[in-house]
Amino acid sequence: MEFQLEHAKDILRRTPATLNLLLQDLSEPWLMNNEGPDTWSPYDVVGHLIHGEETDWIPRAKIILDDGENRAFTPFNREAMFEKSKGKSIGELLKMFAQLRAENLRQLDKLNLTPELLAKRGLHPELGIVTLSQLLSTWVVHDLSHIGQIVRVMCKQYGDAVGPWKAYLPVLTR
Amino acid sequence: MEFQLEHAKDILRRTPATLNLLLQDLSEPWLMNNEGPDTWSPYDVVGHLIHGEETDWIPRAKIILDDGENRAFTPFNREAMFEKSKGKSIGELLKMFAQLRAENLRQLDKLNLTPELLAKRGLHPELGIVTLSQLLSTWVVHDLSHIGQIVRVMCKQYGDAVGPWKAYLPVLTR
Repeated sequence: MEFQLEHAKDILRRTPATLNLLLQDLSEPWLMNNEGPDTWSPYDVVGHLIHGEETDWIPRAKIILDDGENRAFTPFNREAMFEKSKGKSIGELLKMFAQLRAENLRQLDKLNLTPELLAKRGLHPELGIVTLSQLLSTWVVHDLSHIGQIVRVMCKQYGDAVGPWKAYLPVLTR
Repeated sequence: MEFQLEHAKDILRRTPATLNLLLQDLSEPWLMNNEGPDTWSPYDVVGHLIHGEETDWIPRAKIILDDGENRAFTPFNREAMFEKSKGKSIGELLKMFAQLRAENLRQLDKLNLTPELLAKRGLHPELGIVTLSQLLSTWVVHDLSHIGQIVRVMCKQYGDAVGPWKAYLPVLTR
């Protein structure tokens, strides 16, 4: 698929409610268990998505539109949530994420992006030249891949409970 | 995690609404594209989940409770949906799945499962001896892993659109 702004927005606007449905009021072990040392729980993933809303997607879009290739993006801290989420309930995090996403979608609309603007180039600190449409495509894939991570982490909590069926469930050994 | 009936039900009851949120009224390419030859689209996955509700989980639970190890399960046709879903809209499939799941959760409650019943053994045609709690754990992991498949298939539609970010998105090459 080629990037299309309407296609992308249709995914981005669904993510908060999808996360609510998957995680709201879920019992502690489903929420807090991870895949082992240095891996993330579903709770951790929501904090990571919040940090992306605050520092990554729309701020980088604005850097591309304002400064083009002349100013590299601020590097994104993938693990900021371990400090930032401390003491917050999953309900609070889900609400924060939903509010930030709604605001960022409003900001996105305000940018009035045309095909010309979507082709504008920016400078990623490690990846080099990228375009605005590549940034927005990555926002979509980032959402979906973290939903995939959440359900994979949850699957693995039942890795032993499924018994012999493990042989039919590649997700458990991925 | 050990299997606990309440934990399992808390996942099983969320799946229809999660699928609705992800897929209802989604545009055709997100819904119908797959990962290449002999792979499934999100639309296909919903049909597969419907067939599981009709022929796999509760029917097998009843075989275990009624006949134990004396009667092997009927083999499950993983690809029945290619015929069965024909001509149906995604909205129709999502509605069918939600109705079947709600009915199956009612059936599950009616079984009044105790720890003794959950430990009862049945005979899988290929895997051999399995228990009822392993069957129900597999139902949960099956749901979650197919949600993961749906979002992975969707991610891959933007495999080119993300440009250089592909290097940071392992989901695109999995």
